[in-house]
Amino acid sequence: MTLKPIEHADAAPEVRAVYDDIKAARNVPDVNNFWKMAAHHPPTLKRTWESLREVMAPGALDPLVKEMIFVAVSVTNGCDYCIRSHEAAARRAGMTDAQFGELMAVIGMANETNRLAKGYQVEIDEALK
Amino acid sequence: MTLKPIEHADAAPEVRAVYDDIKAARNVPDVNNFWKMAAHHPPTLKRTWESLREVMAPGALDPLVKEMIFVAVSVTNGCDYCIRSHEAAARRAGMTDAQFGELMAVIGMANETNRLAKGYQVEIDEALK
Amino acid sequence: MTLKPIEHADAAPEVRAVYDDIKAARNVPDVNNFWKMAAHHPPTLKRTWESLREVMAPGALDPLVKEMIFVAVSVTNGCDYCIRSHEAAARRAGMTDAQFGELMAVIGMANETNRLAKGYQVEIDEALK
Amino acid sequence: MTLKPIEHADAAPEVRAVYDDIKAARNVPDVNNFWKMAAHHPPTLKRTWESLREVMAPGALDPLVKEMIFVAVSVTNGCDYCIRSHEAAARRAGMTDAQFGELMAVIGMANETNRLAKGYQVEIDEALK
Amino acid sequence: MTLKPIEHADAAPEVRAVYDDIKAARNVPDVNNFWKMAAHHPPTLKRTWESLREVMAPGALDPLVKEMIFVAVSVTNGCDYCIRSHEAAARRAGMTDAQFGELMAVIGMANETNRLAKGYQVEIDEALK
Amino acid sequence: MTLKPIEHADAAPEVRAVYDDIKAARNVPDVNNFWKMAAHHPPTLKRTWESLREVMAPGALDPLVKEMIFVAVSVTNGCDYCIRSHEAAARRAGMTDAQFGELMAVIGMANETNRLAKGYQVEIDEALK
Repeated sequence: MTLKPIEHADAAPEVRAVYDDIKAARNVPDVNNFWKMAAHHPPTLKRTWESLREVMAPGALDPLVKEMIFVAVSVTNGCDYCIRSHEAAARRAGMTDAQFGELMAVIGMANETNRLAKGYQVEIDEALK
Repeated sequence: MTLKPIEHADAAPEVRAVYDDIKAARNVPDVNNFWKMAAHHPPTLKRTWESLREVMAPGALDPLVKEMIFVAVSVTNGCDYCIRSHEAAARRAGMTDAQFGELMAVIGMANETNRLAKGYQVEIDEALK
Repeated sequence: MTLKPIEHADAAPEVRAVYDDIKAARNVPDVNNFWKMAAHHPPTLKRTWESLREVMAPGALDPLVKEMIFVAVSVTNGCDYCIRSHEAAARRAGMTDAQFGELMAVIGMANETNRLAKGYQVEIDEALK
Repeated sequence: MTLKPIEHADAAPEVRAVYDDIKAARNVPDVNNFWKMAAHHPPTLKRTWESLREVMAPGALDPLVKEMIFVAVSVTNGCDYCIRSHEAAARRAGMTDAQFGELMAVIGMANETNRLAKGYQVEIDEALK
Repeated sequence: MTLKPIEHADAAPEVRAVYDDIKAARNVPDVNNFWKMAAHHPPTLKRTWESLREVMAPGALDPLVKEMIFVAVSVTNGCDYCIRSHEAAARRAGMTDAQFGELMAVIGMANETNRLAKGYQVEIDEALK
Repeated sequence: MTLKPIEHADAAPEVRAVYDDIKAARNVPDVNNFWKMAAHHPPTLKRTWESLREVMAPGALDPLVKEMIFVAVSVTNGCDYCIRSHEAAARRAGMTDAQFGELMAVIGMANETNRLAKGYQVEIDEALK
């Protein structure tokens, strides 16, 4: 009943154009399932790709830092697909095992202290206003 | 009805010892409200401080990157106190306005694509298993 | 170790009565696994079914809109079972592929802007108070 | 310490152009605080506005349904600013008190049953695969 | 623009009947704001009160344990109103400061380890299937 | 691409020491996958185990109550692994089927009313401040 991924061979021209753009930008032989599912709504496919390309490009933050931030959000939201695909991207961008370990440790502590701050209903300090 | 922050002058010796340790480690005149509330349960105060000090110390990731990851989690969890205190910490660690802007952009896109991946029930690619 | 679904043949009379009510209301030959698990606590089975029947009935909002709202919540909470069962219900209520595509796009943008509003700690405008 | 909203008079030309576009599209005398904060990162301001305009435009779903979906996500994420601004937008699009009441009831039930499905670790029915 | 609480004097008879029922059951002179807001949709008011009364009644779990579970969910969802009202209810049911301290500590650790389990994509052990 | 669990035979001495400590404390022949994954970052393994042992020890709250709180958080966060492992731990600590049923019912109602409180933007009562 659920939708199936749309392969390149079965895709409409506007979808193929985005697939080709992703493949060229990332130098990969095929796009992954995320794009093949988003392709069911071509405007979402195009807009999401263009936004992601803009946001994840090297800028004031380097790509590795951006991918680790992406992992932190994905872990906190509990999205398995996103955790795996962005952990892979972070490793391609140079993340070491030691960096991954520290990333996980920070994510864990942030989630713990976020709840303590809420649970104790901590008032915002004057210096933070 | 809610608990009030415990000030240094009113704190038990075991709590004061942690406050003094935080003040020395961070070179600040007073600890902030988070610690003054956690102090209602001294074992939580001590354990949380020791864990946070260990996790946020410079290591394979530098302190600025760690603070930005902390902000990413806090924004995703919607913890106002945590957003403000760790944005402040990130700025003290050198975060520029441009870096903050990109941090927010990545957090936003990650949250969007996390939901698209869930909504489309994207299957994990073989290469990501 | 986990609980197993309770089939109609093995169910206590009070559970069977709810199963029969669901089957009649939805014109289906069997209830799905959600109900067969909730049946482990008969008061929860009965109360949840009665609440859901009341809330999802046609009213000021039509059933398709209600099912799409249900999907939006389920995607945001990351509940795979709920996404699949309510996407199916929305399709039975007439949701087209184009509507599903726009539903996903709105869910995605809402999640992105929710985090931007939190991350920038946007103050509520006077006109919204 | 936190950033302040950027008013039209103080905005760079690229920011003003977006503000003017929003004001024209929505026929309002001023943009709200969300945009004045996003303006601290002009690419985010521009991209977010263009994406939102595309996604929220009338299409296969009408604007009222889209705004109610937006509210459902915002309530589930706990974003006060987003709840208030999109409840206001939904009312402008014609949402009645009775519709708002049913919207809240559906959001509530969806959140309850999402957790029951998770808590009971309900297996996906064959028919939903 | 937001809705205002509906006071007893201004309430329709069906709403007053629920208010009176809550006041009698809890032995309080007035209902709190949660009910005065839910009253904008009388079926939600009535259903929520009846469900809550059933679920929170003494049973296999005592009321204090139930209120602490309620607090744990509310902290994890970040609902300030719910944290405060159910912390108050837990204290009325006998929660001591030491119990509150341990409750917060468990909530914190659960949130931390939840994210570590997700982040490391831990496979479910055979014994847990 | 993902990390694999580290078995006792392949573990570094510092990791083995923690494994042995867990096995002795819990009287089990092997540690579960959570620990075998956390072992990829030995400081996280050690700190998490020591924190969890301290927090989950009998104190002002008994172990069964603590495990049920842990389940409530895990269900709300949607962590399947954590739900299963802590439901198992709660059952080992004596949780009956009736208690599990009520636990689920409370979690469900708390999630529902959390969203109603947010959705209606309920103001905090004076008595709760």
